[in-house]
Amino acid sequence: MADSLKNKASIVGIGTTPFTKNSGVSELSLACQAVRAAIDEAGLKPSDVDGLVTFLLDSSDEIEVARSTGIGDLTFFSQVNYGGGAAVGLIHQAAMAIATGSAKYVVVYRAMNGRSGHRMGQGVSGQVVTSDLIHWSWYTPFGLLTPASWIAMSAQRYMHEYGATRDHLATVALTQRDHAQANPNATTRGRTLSREEYFSARMVSRPLGLYDCCQETDGGCALVITSPERARDLASKPAQIRAVSQASFEGQEQMTSFYRPDIARLPEMEMAARAVYTQAGLGPEDIDAACLYDAFTIEVLMQLESFGFCGVGEAKDFIVDGALTLGGRLPNNTHGGLLSEGYIHGLNNIAEGVRLVRGTSCNQPERADHVLVSSGVGVPTGAMILGCAE
Amino acid sequence: MADSLKNKASIVGIGTTPFTKNSGVSELSLACQAVRAAIDEAGLKPSDVDGLVTFLLDSSDEIEVARSTGIGDLTFFSQVNYGGGAAVGLIHQAAMAIATGSAKYVVVYRAMNGRSGHRMGQGVSGQVVTSDLIHWSWYTPFGLLTPASWIAMSAQRYMHEYGATRDHLATVALTQRDHAQANPNATTRGRTLSREEYFSARMVSRPLGLYDCCQETDGGCALVITSPERARDLASKPAQIRAVSQASFEGQEQMTSFYRPDIARLPEMEMAARAVYTQAGLGPEDIDAACLYDAFTIEVLMQLESFGFCGVGEAKDFIVDGALTLGGRLPNNTHGGLLSEGYIHGLNNIAEGVRLVRGTSCNQPERADHVLVSSGVGVPTGAMILGCAE
Repeated sequence: MADSLKNKASIVGIGTTPFTKNSGVSELSLACQAVRAAIDEAGLKPSDVDGLVTFLLDSSDEIEVARSTGIGDLTFFSQVNYGGGAAVGLIHQAAMAIATGSAKYVVVYRAMNGRSGHRMGQGVSGQVVTSDLIHWSWYTPFGLLTPASWIAMSAQRYMHEYGATRDHLATVALTQRDHAQANPNATTRGRTLSREEYFSARMVSRPLGLYDCCQETDGGCALVITSPERARDLASKPAQIRAVSQASFEGQEQMTSFYRPDIARLPEMEMAARAVYTQAGLGPEDIDAACLYDAFTIEVLMQLESFGFCGVGEAKDFIVDGALTLGGRLPNNTHGGLLSEGYIHGLNNIAEGVRLVRGTSCNQPERADHVLVSSGVGVPTGAMILGCAE
Repeated sequence: MADSLKNKASIVGIGTTPFTKNSGVSELSLACQAVRAAIDEAGLKPSDVDGLVTFLLDSSDEIEVARSTGIGDLTFFSQVNYGGGAAVGLIHQAAMAIATGSAKYVVVYRAMNGRSGHRMGQGVSGQVVTSDLIHWSWYTPFGLLTPASWIAMSAQRYMHEYGATRDHLATVALTQRDHAQANPNATTRGRTLSREEYFSARMVSRPLGLYDCCQETDGGCALVITSPERARDLASKPAQIRAVSQASFEGQEQMTSFYRPDIARLPEMEMAARAVYTQAGLGPEDIDAACLYDAFTIEVLMQLESFGFCGVGEAKDFIVDGALTLGGRLPNNTHGGLLSEGYIHGLNNIAEGVRLVRGTSCNQPERADHVLVSSGVGVPTGAMILGCAE
C-alpha cells in the first residue's frame, strides 16, 4: 500500500490546560492555552504552524485560534463531526495533510467548558435543530435524551446477551480511578473509589450508575503533527502514526443505531479495527497498551471484543485478573481516561497514547511499543496505532 | 514535489437538483437528490462511495445522507468551515483522501433552501453565538450585519483607490447574466439584464446594488472525486485536479478582515494563487477560462488581480473589451455564476469548471485546457486548477 498513511506522520507535541470543574475563562482561552502549550512542547514557534483541525462541536474557530496565538497563514483547515467520534478523525485529517504536503505542522485541538458551561449530561433537550429533528423524533419522546440513556440501550442488551454484570463494569471504573491517583492533572486525583462506593452510588440510566459515566470537565487539549523526517529535528520523542482510520458503518446513526440487527456489538469499531491492523501490519497480539474510548465503562468491554483482544462476549472474563492494570495484558487508560482524568472529548486519551509511546506516562508499563487509541463509541468514529519512530 | 496533490485526483461526476426559489422539499432531500445524481452521472453505485465531505454550514450530516442514499460504510468524512470559502476546501479534502488511500470514491455536496429557508441576505442578526460574540461585537453595532455590508467596505475602498466605477461592476453583472441565458438550470434564464436596469435597481449596501449581489437559491450540488487511474474506467470524461489549496492569511477574519493594512486586496486569494500556480507548474497565462467566486460583482474584479491576470488596480481596464465573455481573454462563469445561475455556495461554480474541461458547458469556449476555480472571498478560502486527464 504505497499510498497508505502508515508511518507518514508523527505526533510531536502535547499541550493541555489544567482540567477543572470551573475554568473561569472562555473556551477560546482554553483552546489557545492548549495550542500554545503544544507548540511550545514541540519546540516550535506559532508561525511554524500552517494547519489547524478541530471538532465540529468546538466553539473556537480555527481562524480565531490562529489570530489569538500568533499562528499566521494556514494552508489547511477542517473540522470533524460526531462528538467524541471526531478525536481520531482529527489525527486522520492531520496525517493526510502532512502526507500530501498540504501542511508542514498541523495542530489539532479541543477545548470545552464541559462542566461550567454546557454539560454533556444535559443531552439534546432543547438543542435539536434542522434535519436532526426527524432523527431525534424517534427517540426523544421515549426519554432517550442523554448520552447515558442512549448507551444504556446497548449496555442492557450486551449484559443480557453475554452475562456481563455491573461487577464487571465496576472493575473498569475502579481500575481507571486507581490509575488516576498517579496523574497530577486528573480531576479525581485524591478521590479513590471502592467497590462499595461504586454500588451505592445513584443510578443514572440503568444499568449505568454514576461511576459508569465519565467526568464533565473544563479544559483544553492540543497535539502537534508533522512528518517523521521533520520530527527527527525536534526536541521531544515523536509518536509515529502506524495506522489511522475513520469508520462509519451501514445504518450508522449518531448514538442511536438501534435499528441494526445487533446492538450489543460495535460494527463501526470492528471496521476501524480491521483498517488499522491491515494498515499497520499488526494484530491485537502486537498491542501492548491501549486508550479505549471510555465515556462509559461498558464501552471498554465492548471494544476489547471489537479489537479482537478476546472473543465476542468474553470481555468479562478477559478483565477479571487485572488485564487492564499496569501489570496486566493490556494496561488501559493509564492516565485515568475520560472516566477519571477528565472528559476532553477523547483528545486527552490520544495525548496519553503519545505519552505511553514516549515512556512518560504517570503509569508507564514496562512495554509500550504499540499503543491502540480509539475514539467515540456509538458514533462515526476511528482508531489509530502509535509506535516509536522507525 | 513528490508529495503534492498535483494530478492525484479527478472529478468524475456532477449532480445538481433544479435551482429554484422554493424547492418545496427539505435540505436533506435536496442533498440526497444531488448526491444520487452525481453518483449516477459517474456510472457508480451508492455502495461504491466511501467518503463524504460537506460544508460546516450544511444542515445534512454525512451519515444522514449516507443512510438516505444507500451509501454504506464510510472510511472518511469531514466538514469545512467559513461559508463559501469551503467550496474548494471540500475538493482539497477529497483529493487528500484519494491521494492517501483513505477513500476510493468521495462525494462532496452542498444543499440549501437559500431562498425559501434561511436567506444569506438576512445576515447574522439574531444568530451570533459563542466565541463569535466577541468577534461580531466590533461590527454589528455599526450596522455591519450582512454579507453585502461587509463586502461593501472593501468595494468602497477598492473603487476609491483604483478608480473603478459602478459601470465596471455592471459589466461583470451583465456578462454573467448574458451567459445564464443559455443555461437551462439558471434561475435567471429568460430574464435578461440591461445596463439601464442595472443602474435603476435599488441600492443594497453602497456601492453594491441589487444586481451586484448573487441570487438566493434553493438547490443542491454534488461532485464525485476519485483517482485518475479509477477515473479511466468510468463513462464520463474526468476533470483532473492539477492543483488545489486552501488559504487563510494572517489577521484573517470571516468577512471582516478590516484591521489589515490594505482592505482593497485579497491576501488569502493571492496566497491561494501562489499555491496553485506553483503546484500545477502553471501561470495566469496558461489559464483559458475561470469560475471566479462571485457572490458580489466586485469580487471578480479583485480576484483578476489576485490571480495575476492583470496588475493591481487594473481589472477595470482588463474587462472593458469583453475579456470575460465567451470570445474574450478569460471567459468567466460561463454558466452565469452565483450572480445569475444560482447560489449553491460556490459548489456550482466548481461543477461548471468540470463542464468546461469536459467541453460540455452551455457556453463552451474554444479552448479550456486549464480552468481556474476559486471559492469564497473575504473568508478563509481556496483555489484549484482543473485540466484534462494526462
